[in-house]
Amino acid sequence: MIDITKKPEIYRQATAKGKITLKNKTIQQIIEGKIEKGDPFQIAKVAAILAAKNTSSIIPLCHQIPLTSINVDFQIINDHNIEVVTSVKTKAQTGVEMEALTATAVALLTIWDMTKKYEKDTKGQYPTTEIRDLRVIQKIKEK
Amino acid sequence: MIDITKKPEIYRQATAKGKITLKNKTIQQIIEGKIEKGDPFQIAKVAAILAAKNTSSIIPLCHQIPLTSINVDFQIINDHNIEVVTSVKTKAQTGVEMEALTATAVALLTIWDMTKKYEKDTKGQYPTTEIRDLRVIQKIKEK
Amino acid sequence: MIDITKKPEIYRQATAKGKITLKNKTIQQIIEGKIEKGDPFQIAKVAAILAAKNTSSIIPLCHQIPLTSINVDFQIINDHNIEVVTSVKTKAQTGVEMEALTATAVALLTIWDMTKKYEKDTKGQYPTTEIRDLRVIQKIKEK
Amino acid sequence: MIDITKKPEIYRQATAKGKITLKNKTIQQIIEGKIEKGDPFQIAKVAAILAAKNTSSIIPLCHQIPLTSINVDFQIINDHNIEVVTSVKTKAQTGVEMEALTATAVALLTIWDMTKKYEKDTKGQYPTTEIRDLRVIQKIKEK
Amino acid sequence: MIDITKKPEIYRQATAKGKITLKNKTIQQIIEGKIEKGDPFQIAKVAAILAAKNTSSIIPLCHQIPLTSINVDFQIINDHNIEVVTSVKTKAQTGVEMEALTATAVALLTIWDMTKKYEKDTKGQYPTTEIRDLRVIQKIKEK
Amino acid sequence: MIDITKKPEIYRQATAKGKITLKNKTIQQIIEGKIEKGDPFQIAKVAAILAAKNTSSIIPLCHQIPLTSINVDFQIINDHNIEVVTSVKTKAQTGVEMEALTATAVALLTIWDMTKKYEKDTKGQYPTTEIRDLRVIQKIKEK
Repeated sequence: MIDITKKPEIYRQATAKGKITLKNKTIQQIIEGKIEKGDPFQIAKVAAILAAKNTSSIIPLCHQIPLTSINVDFQIINDHNIEVVTSVKTKAQTGVEMEALTATAVALLTIWDMTKKYEKDTKGQYPTTEIRDLRVIQKIKEK
Repeated sequence: MIDITKKPEIYRQATAKGKITLKNKTIQQIIEGKIEKGDPFQIAKVAAILAAKNTSSIIPLCHQIPLTSINVDFQIINDHNIEVVTSVKTKAQTGVEMEALTATAVALLTIWDMTKKYEKDTKGQYPTTEIRDLRVIQKIKEK
Repeated sequence: MIDITKKPEIYRQATAKGKITLKNKTIQQIIEGKIEKGDPFQIAKVAAILAAKNTSSIIPLCHQIPLTSINVDFQIINDHNIEVVTSVKTKAQTGVEMEALTATAVALLTIWDMTKKYEKDTKGQYPTTEIRDLRVIQKIKEK
Repeated sequence: MIDITKKPEIYRQATAKGKITLKNKTIQQIIEGKIEKGDPFQIAKVAAILAAKNTSSIIPLCHQIPLTSINVDFQIINDHNIEVVTSVKTKAQTGVEMEALTATAVALLTIWDMTKKYEKDTKGQYPTTEIRDLRVIQKIKEK
Repeated sequence: MIDITKKPEIYRQATAKGKITLKNKTIQQIIEGKIEKGDPFQIAKVAAILAAKNTSSIIPLCHQIPLTSINVDFQIINDHNIEVVTSVKTKAQTGVEMEALTATAVALLTIWDMTKKYEKDTKGQYPTTEIRDLRVIQKIKEK
Repeated sequence: MIDITKKPEIYRQATAKGKITLKNKTIQQIIEGKIEKGDPFQIAKVAAILAAKNTSSIIPLCHQIPLTSINVDFQIINDHNIEVVTSVKTKAQTGVEMEALTATAVALLTIWDMTKKYEKDTKGQYPTTEIRDLRVIQKIKEK
């Protein structure tokens, strides 16, 4: 683990974004509130927030960083895609892009889990479902 | 959480695959064993195995499933891309695709964390790095 | 920890119930969907499900029991009270009342956390808020 | 999760209190040190301390707060009731009442678990046992 | 992680043993019940039981094994040494020696933590304290 | 848990050391990179780092301390012994020797787990394997 002992505590923020591709029919069922397991965005938001706070246990070489803000947003961007954007803030000795990325990945995985039933084909396979475009879109640190 | 009380315990297997895009220079440093934080594949493998076992805590509506096998493979598929393939096995009342997907996502996130230093541009942003093509490539269950 | 090695694996079910007393105004804001932190019942449900699965880490002498079903219901029973009822099922060598109780307690605590802002008086104290009547209402085991 | 980025780090303290109702006979066995699973108060104290430190993983929207003090006290207040009082302290950007409440709830649940055997009737039900009166009795913050 | 998919579920038991060397004065204070932080054996027992159940998260390549019995015993064997013996049982596809060892190690570490204050010299160093002789003393499996 | 509320945040460092005794043949196989489960030192390092960060959940009365550096080193010191040395750093209100000790213990346990197959005799027992000499070798705090 990188030694950050001598780095100053400064304000830091990171934003990550990712997408999940689903069948159009599944997107429709989300819009209509018909997903049997519950509201995918509500559940995914909770999962993302918990994952952000737990990043240093999930990603082995991450430092333990208490986050002062976690914001997770969901948007249906077209017939087949949902976009998740997560922003996290802290005052810390190292950056928090892994927290933003981990939260976003877990939100996307949770949407998959919530919609599994509608995405499987008759052989139990997932021809459409895909998590993609997971990127850090902005990192800010106090000068 | 879906009620699986009456489903039989049968043999189940799932395989997930995902990619991370890195700078060609970073890929070279991985090949040459020059990543300062350690061997990204070894660390990512451990992270993936721990995540697979911990899936029911990370993805809220997943059942607790003791896995009998977790296999994580890494391949540098070209100048810019690493592919991670994870297979998990169990005898259980429900499928384990979320375990395979979660492990693969965590392996890819760990590679990101291990190579962060080499991927950042002079403004601390990540113009190249991207996790993508995360899919379930095979689900098998005993008839 | 009690030795359950020689007990048979049988079907088991447990249901727990508990209440939280809130200000009438807070109850109104829940009904109207105006709680700033999000929908208390959705968040509390996720928290309860995760807690049920994690009971053996929270309550030291509980055995590790994979649950096959967790059901959490919320009801506004009058102007001041919300009732949470949690049912869990498993096939195991010991009962699951602690799982049902822990999940219910965590659901109630999460409602508290979600509505804190509306429950505090001008001195930051909680004159109204109270968790109470947490009981096991039914335990069933296969003969 | 509420954004606390701009709030100052100040001294904070919270105290929560709760009760568990048990059979008089069970209370007697606790007094006489005859509970087969061990000393309920010792075990419940450890469970409470661990829960206080783990609050941000149990209650989804709680911030990660390192506590500087956790104090858990047990008192047999009459023939049927045990009272648990938990005080926690920290220097942080937000209050710690959820930590005090979560610790108290887990202490009470652990007492239930430790005395289950003595509380069950011949049908395996719990006619007497009840967790109740869980409240925040004091919140203090540095001016 | 070793693939145990085809191994049969059989009865398994493992016992581990380890020692901690303390100052004679510290041993006396344990005997007299004067350790300020509480009873080291009670706290260490809880820590050991929780660690045994959590072994697959602590030791990366261990399988998730639900234990049916965990027994932790403490003995002051002479003026300077405490011995911890942990036995665990399960019905599983692989052995549980790592669970017995991890629990014993955590019990010994917890005793250290409980008695730190009495073991430190004036420079804050630990000239006497040592954990040693941590071994598996017996592994049994059903034929 | 000791009340550290009024202690100042100062620089602190702790180093722990421990050994594991293995068969000479197992040591040879580690040197030759022939351990089937993977590189024991790489896996043990990850396990140790995660354990250091998780100490306050493993050792009940430890405070939650964000570490700014964790360093784990492995050395084959002779035909039968591997030595693990772990140093941790922080700026905190209390010392971090338990973090260094816990990380070292978990590294040693992980080496055991990785080499189990080669250490067992024909009856499945471990006549050679032993964890020993686990000590704090240095504690430093800023004056």
